[in-house]
Amino acid sequence: MIRSTICGPAIGLAAALIATLAAPPVRAQLNTLTKEQMIEYTAQNPFERFPDGRPKVPDSIIERARGLSAEEVFGVLPAKGFRNQYEDGFQVLHPGKKMVGRAFTVQFMPARPDVETVMNAKSHEKGGPALNNQYAIDMLQPGDVLVVDLFGKKDGGTIVGDNLFYYVMKATHGGGLVVDGAIRDLEGISEMDMPAYFRSAHPSYIANVMLTGVNVPVRIGNVTVMPGDLVVGDREGIYFIPPQLAREVLDKADETHIHDEWTRLKFDEGKYKSSDIYGSPRDPELKKEYQEYLAKRLAEIRAQK
Amino acid sequence: MIRSTICGPAIGLAAALIATLAAPPVRAQLNTLTKEQMIEYTAQNPFERFPDGRPKVPDSIIERARGLSAEEVFGVLPAKGFRNQYEDGFQVLHPGKKMVGRAFTVQFMPARPDVETVMNAKSHEKGGPALNNQYAIDMLQPGDVLVVDLFGKKDGGTIVGDNLFYYVMKATHGGGLVVDGAIRDLEGISEMDMPAYFRSAHPSYIANVMLTGVNVPVRIGNVTVMPGDLVVGDREGIYFIPPQLAREVLDKADETHIHDEWTRLKFDEGKYKSSDIYGSPRDPELKKEYQEYLAKRLAEIRAQK
Amino acid sequence: MIRSTICGPAIGLAAALIATLAAPPVRAQLNTLTKEQMIEYTAQNPFERFPDGRPKVPDSIIERARGLSAEEVFGVLPAKGFRNQYEDGFQVLHPGKKMVGRAFTVQFMPARPDVETVMNAKSHEKGGPALNNQYAIDMLQPGDVLVVDLFGKKDGGTIVGDNLFYYVMKATHGGGLVVDGAIRDLEGISEMDMPAYFRSAHPSYIANVMLTGVNVPVRIGNVTVMPGDLVVGDREGIYFIPPQLAREVLDKADETHIHDEWTRLKFDEGKYKSSDIYGSPRDPELKKEYQEYLAKRLAEIRAQK
Amino acid sequence: MIRSTICGPAIGLAAALIATLAAPPVRAQLNTLTKEQMIEYTAQNPFERFPDGRPKVPDSIIERARGLSAEEVFGVLPAKGFRNQYEDGFQVLHPGKKMVGRAFTVQFMPARPDVETVMNAKSHEKGGPALNNQYAIDMLQPGDVLVVDLFGKKDGGTIVGDNLFYYVMKATHGGGLVVDGAIRDLEGISEMDMPAYFRSAHPSYIANVMLTGVNVPVRIGNVTVMPGDLVVGDREGIYFIPPQLAREVLDKADETHIHDEWTRLKFDEGKYKSSDIYGSPRDPELKKEYQEYLAKRLAEIRAQK
Amino acid sequence: MIRSTICGPAIGLAAALIATLAAPPVRAQLNTLTKEQMIEYTAQNPFERFPDGRPKVPDSIIERARGLSAEEVFGVLPAKGFRNQYEDGFQVLHPGKKMVGRAFTVQFMPARPDVETVMNAKSHEKGGPALNNQYAIDMLQPGDVLVVDLFGKKDGGTIVGDNLFYYVMKATHGGGLVVDGAIRDLEGISEMDMPAYFRSAHPSYIANVMLTGVNVPVRIGNVTVMPGDLVVGDREGIYFIPPQLAREVLDKADETHIHDEWTRLKFDEGKYKSSDIYGSPRDPELKKEYQEYLAKRLAEIRAQK
Amino acid sequence: MIRSTICGPAIGLAAALIATLAAPPVRAQLNTLTKEQMIEYTAQNPFERFPDGRPKVPDSIIERARGLSAEEVFGVLPAKGFRNQYEDGFQVLHPGKKMVGRAFTVQFMPARPDVETVMNAKSHEKGGPALNNQYAIDMLQPGDVLVVDLFGKKDGGTIVGDNLFYYVMKATHGGGLVVDGAIRDLEGISEMDMPAYFRSAHPSYIANVMLTGVNVPVRIGNVTVMPGDLVVGDREGIYFIPPQLAREVLDKADETHIHDEWTRLKFDEGKYKSSDIYGSPRDPELKKEYQEYLAKRLAEIRAQK
Repeated sequence: MIRSTICGPAIGLAAALIATLAAPPVRAQLNTLTKEQMIEYTAQNPFERFPDGRPKVPDSIIERARGLSAEEVFGVLPAKGFRNQYEDGFQVLHPGKKMVGRAFTVQFMPARPDVETVMNAKSHEKGGPALNNQYAIDMLQPGDVLVVDLFGKKDGGTIVGDNLFYYVMKATHGGGLVVDGAIRDLEGISEMDMPAYFRSAHPSYIANVMLTGVNVPVRIGNVTVMPGDLVVGDREGIYFIPPQLAREVLDKADETHIHDEWTRLKFDEGKYKSSDIYGSPRDPELKKEYQEYLAKRLAEIRAQK
Repeated sequence: MIRSTICGPAIGLAAALIATLAAPPVRAQLNTLTKEQMIEYTAQNPFERFPDGRPKVPDSIIERARGLSAEEVFGVLPAKGFRNQYEDGFQVLHPGKKMVGRAFTVQFMPARPDVETVMNAKSHEKGGPALNNQYAIDMLQPGDVLVVDLFGKKDGGTIVGDNLFYYVMKATHGGGLVVDGAIRDLEGISEMDMPAYFRSAHPSYIANVMLTGVNVPVRIGNVTVMPGDLVVGDREGIYFIPPQLAREVLDKADETHIHDEWTRLKFDEGKYKSSDIYGSPRDPELKKEYQEYLAKRLAEIRAQK
Repeated sequence: MIRSTICGPAIGLAAALIATLAAPPVRAQLNTLTKEQMIEYTAQNPFERFPDGRPKVPDSIIERARGLSAEEVFGVLPAKGFRNQYEDGFQVLHPGKKMVGRAFTVQFMPARPDVETVMNAKSHEKGGPALNNQYAIDMLQPGDVLVVDLFGKKDGGTIVGDNLFYYVMKATHGGGLVVDGAIRDLEGISEMDMPAYFRSAHPSYIANVMLTGVNVPVRIGNVTVMPGDLVVGDREGIYFIPPQLAREVLDKADETHIHDEWTRLKFDEGKYKSSDIYGSPRDPELKKEYQEYLAKRLAEIRAQK
Repeated sequence: MIRSTICGPAIGLAAALIATLAAPPVRAQLNTLTKEQMIEYTAQNPFERFPDGRPKVPDSIIERARGLSAEEVFGVLPAKGFRNQYEDGFQVLHPGKKMVGRAFTVQFMPARPDVETVMNAKSHEKGGPALNNQYAIDMLQPGDVLVVDLFGKKDGGTIVGDNLFYYVMKATHGGGLVVDGAIRDLEGISEMDMPAYFRSAHPSYIANVMLTGVNVPVRIGNVTVMPGDLVVGDREGIYFIPPQLAREVLDKADETHIHDEWTRLKFDEGKYKSSDIYGSPRDPELKKEYQEYLAKRLAEIRAQK
Repeated sequence: MIRSTICGPAIGLAAALIATLAAPPVRAQLNTLTKEQMIEYTAQNPFERFPDGRPKVPDSIIERARGLSAEEVFGVLPAKGFRNQYEDGFQVLHPGKKMVGRAFTVQFMPARPDVETVMNAKSHEKGGPALNNQYAIDMLQPGDVLVVDLFGKKDGGTIVGDNLFYYVMKATHGGGLVVDGAIRDLEGISEMDMPAYFRSAHPSYIANVMLTGVNVPVRIGNVTVMPGDLVVGDREGIYFIPPQLAREVLDKADETHIHDEWTRLKFDEGKYKSSDIYGSPRDPELKKEYQEYLAKRLAEIRAQK
Repeated sequence: MIRSTICGPAIGLAAALIATLAAPPVRAQLNTLTKEQMIEYTAQNPFERFPDGRPKVPDSIIERARGLSAEEVFGVLPAKGFRNQYEDGFQVLHPGKKMVGRAFTVQFMPARPDVETVMNAKSHEKGGPALNNQYAIDMLQPGDVLVVDLFGKKDGGTIVGDNLFYYVMKATHGGGLVVDGAIRDLEGISEMDMPAYFRSAHPSYIANVMLTGVNVPVRIGNVTVMPGDLVVGDREGIYFIPPQLAREVLDKADETHIHDEWTRLKFDEGKYKSSDIYGSPRDPELKKEYQEYLAKRLAEIRAQK
């Protein structure tokens, strides 16, 4: 459905941004990270990077992460001091479909004409496109999850309707959408096969907000999301995993999956109380049995990869 | 399940109402619209009317409206000054099933024995039925959507259980139910094939309220619903469309559907940024292509009707 | 502060209303009670009436009611079947100041241009004033409490700012204001000496609503308020007392006050457990002592009146 | 997923409990019912009991109760003075799947090290297991519904993850789970075929709480649940039925089911207004017809049992 | 105002309780602590005890605690592992008046006639008073704060009206009231000079609940309160301090008060940035100055005691 | 009370910032505005600036603004396109005390060790102070209002306790505090004579957050606050006025004050309906009278300045 873009003074503001890529001192958005800053603030990233410095978690990691659940991430991150990487309270478009991808972040703030006028002028100087939701959406890459801070806004806080949702799905190869705000056209969107997490749905166009940052640190509820975080959403909520912890989380999860398998096999035998087996077996014989099972299965799993 | 009607002093109050149809000066409910007032306050209605003056949006319009989404209505009404015709925050019984029909409105207020006693006495004079939920429900017509103002009440605010829900479904030919209040027997109702929107479910009978109006203007959240409004509900929320705007909304929606088709065809080509194509194409060639596509498809659609 | 009135199509709609007083068939507001209906629905009123039929609880009753608390009303009304006459959840302007007066009710609904246009036209025919908040406010009488149903609206739901609040205070002789909605100019209003109960304060003008009834039954939270109800507000909440129950409530409260006096005198003696004395004394001697105290004090109180 | 048990000082506290079974004066949990107290407080139970005195509603009753809905229970309990036996506001894991079973109750309170230390010491004296969630879970029987008071806690209020949920399912033969608190591993749990009602889901382990009672009276929202209550959950909410009322509820429900059947058959004929037939038929002929239908169908149903 | 006690089956239930004091095996309330259990679960109490075993924090400690604020308690308790001893979200009757005293705890649960009947019968056997709010209130001692778990109930959850509030004030010598529930007669209570913390006010009598424990562990929001805890309430919220930590909290607070004095004296000099002085001085000279000031003032304070 | 600063990795991070002032390319905080950017984004500021480019609304304007109310600002800003400059929903420390000053903005985000580590390292290189709440507070100037975005955080979101509140009061000469988050030590703070607006109070220290910007655009509820905005708070809420609109707002308010004066004088005469006088007089004579009064009083007021 038509016109799901910011109207008003924001139109035509983006020129400066494009110019910025060539000419660093120019800056149309309020908040930006230069390539140097992006690399600096994500210095622990062990993987490749996009041309703008954003960490690029490899596709192989993304595929492995489809087997993760929120609980398995919880088993690793808080112990490393990352206590604020989980957020819930979203409406989940397809509860049975995991969302996994690289965070592409977008920030909006309540509109102020005086600030918009300045961004406008800078943009017009350079002849760039409008600094609006489509400006950001046009930059999406395969494997990205679009992560949007719209400060919980409902009326006017609708990042996409069904046409742009369709575009995001195509551009990210079904990566996903997280918006601390709203979507419109829920009726049309509900038939599209991309995971999405949103606070509410509303028929209004996006309005009364201004785009203030693309691929900058954003706040989604109680999480600081960095561009390039590995985003993992299940029906419970969303984890934003710093790239440097992705492998450890996944390796740990392999063990957990095996532990789950073995635990349920034992429970199926019907001979044990839960505490005989779980968290870890009491009986030394059983403990040994489990250790052997774990070693064998881990070897199998790793052989597959 | 039995007894989903108002108990207590309200029983047997409705005689006066029936008499009223014959003898206008009598008035048992607190709030009424005479036929003349109904016509006067809905004077812009371009369609036929029911015998009591309520606008009767034609069945053909109702059928076309099954293709509408909330967003498409939003594209027309606010611009016409109708800023308060949308309401959400309901539990939706069958999210995949559109609700379309003519508003049949019912109003309740918190019970007061002194007022009920008066309505009671008037009713007994004329020998009519009880002024309760069934009194109103018995007046439903095929194509109606029952729209009930129960001021958000949960305990005791249950307009129907499964038996009366079944009756409403039969009487309206599956039209639908909107209640700013509750239903009971959700378990039984969930298997019935009529759309329903409600704030909550509760096992209690309807109680501690009095019927104060049938086919009068009612307040559903932030909307003033007039009898005869075209009601359109999708999984996002409900639009109450004044009859005089129904055609315009539908014609506009036809264009939107074509625009959506074309936009996605272009996105499928994978050659364009979202802003090259959407909201409207930048390139004059593409613009022309779209105009031609639109004209052709509109002609096809209209030929079908 | 200026312009706290409804703008837009509502301006100039009230002519029909004034004409209505002379010529009953004309009706500009959606909801009205004729004088006959007002009398009929408040038939149990034992007191005089205003020219429009609204019950007029005498000034002497109003003065006695200043000694009431919400609990004392609760001791009488539910037992008479009036279970829905209390509402709380308001911001209380002057918690230390009781509010007592006769309910003057006003009803608003969300604006619809089609309905407003009709009211407008009817009003213009008769040359009356605008059908807005001031139209109703101009009808206030000494001893009234202005009771406004603005369906909880905050932004645009501001019945008065400080200038009109000042006028209401003058016109009602400090009667009071209850609004299921908002006020503006809280800063200015807080210095004025009239009780007021409101859901919120907001700087916006009243907007996007239409006046649909004056001195009709209105809904304030979970209460049906009838014009002429005796309104009693304390720091806890508000009771709307049907006129026919006013005397009984007050007589009962006299006894309660004496019971309180005696109970505390006994507690002050420090010799008793609470259950020796309260709710009623266990010991027959004490019971007799209390009965004598009650009789004596009641006689004194009644002699004063 | 691993480690869904209470960590910290609670570990190893349960010895005293086990000893308690043999040696009644010992008491490790804060709250207990001895066998004598259990029998005394559930004296009206007409059925067998478990060894610890908990009422054991027979399997035949449990099977019949699978046909119940919340409304049918409401039709009996309040009239018997049981006004507080229904609770809703839960997330329902499998809305299409009824939950029926015997209440096995568990109570937690916010952790205090001084109290935990005492329970700990008592437990160590006797060499028992940890007083934690698994301690209680290990006592579950086929046909039980685990009913847990975790005072609405989300973070740290997770009674089970998917492994222990699997164990509960096996141990209760799919009985069910009610927690006024949270679960973890919703992703894993959602594939398991046991009914569950919970306030929220969270990835955290259970933490910062202490187990204070097993099979004691617990508070679930506004209900006092007694061990052995018949628990019936549908998509609307949960009823906790005292054993002594189970048969009456079920017999009444049989009649209601027949009444529903007949009512809808009549509605299907399309000849009647709802009030002609429902709540009970107006016409004496119809009334007789219904009575005969009821008698015949009741006989059939009872013959089947 | 009259009759603020539980009506219905609860009346006359308390006999067994009184008998219980003499004859331990009898138990009318659902939850009790024997004297032995009370002592066992509060074993770390360094002070005297009441005859029933409840810790009796000395009056001198209570007096010193009037100088405490919530922050000063926070500075000690969590570090000792007591992370759940603070609760807020109350309405505070007299925000300018500290509340300090010994916790006297009372527990209610939603009423069930079958359980009440049993308690009733046990009570009648012994000829004791009703098991209701007054039963507990009559046991209050000077210096107590009445701490009531009414599970947040508003309508019917009113522990006292103004007469019983007056009694509590007299009996506790102005100790105080905390109720996770409601009070009635706020108008009358607001003139009485005792601190009180409550969730809401309502005109209803206490109803539909049963007294299930006196001086047992109770849950107030997220806190487990033990009988005899030192209760300290300021305008921010309430701390429940285990007796064994009372002295340490107070000694630490003395230092904090001196630190505050010195910090502000320094700030008054206007020569320093906040971080030069606070949390602790950067400059070694200043650090020394502070240490000397602290030592001198501590000596003065301790000399006064 | 001691230690109201961020603990953990944030300590010692600020060196880079200070260095930044001299050496622009260094940047320790995530978000900053260079002097050039500050001037660019506040280009319409008609007044002087601070050395870092922040607009400096003159003291004379601040003094005049003490007479403003929220409604008077509302009369100007939305019409200029500034629809998002008002926020409410705060606890107001001193409702009777206006807050007026220049916005000094501070931004926090949820803590992430990887990002903090980077800021830390940059800071250590330069030897600067900790990047915490005190780092920002030490930069306050007389006339400032400290405006803090702590994203509504309560536990751990406490920007100051009483000692730092005292410092802020001294440093800003009583300017004020707005925090979309919490304060601690409400008990101590409530006796200090500086206006403050906060979401909640909590005894915890500030924790689990990182300072990410000083004097950058921040979001307070639905407002984008720019450094140097004129902040005006009354008991209703807070307006953030762009400097370029300050004079117009004040001039308009002068007229409103006169209009209020005159309106009430007329109402005091008791001869008029509210609509005769307000919003503007109907009668041409009265209109003229008002115009003359306005002219005279405006002249007087302007003569005083």
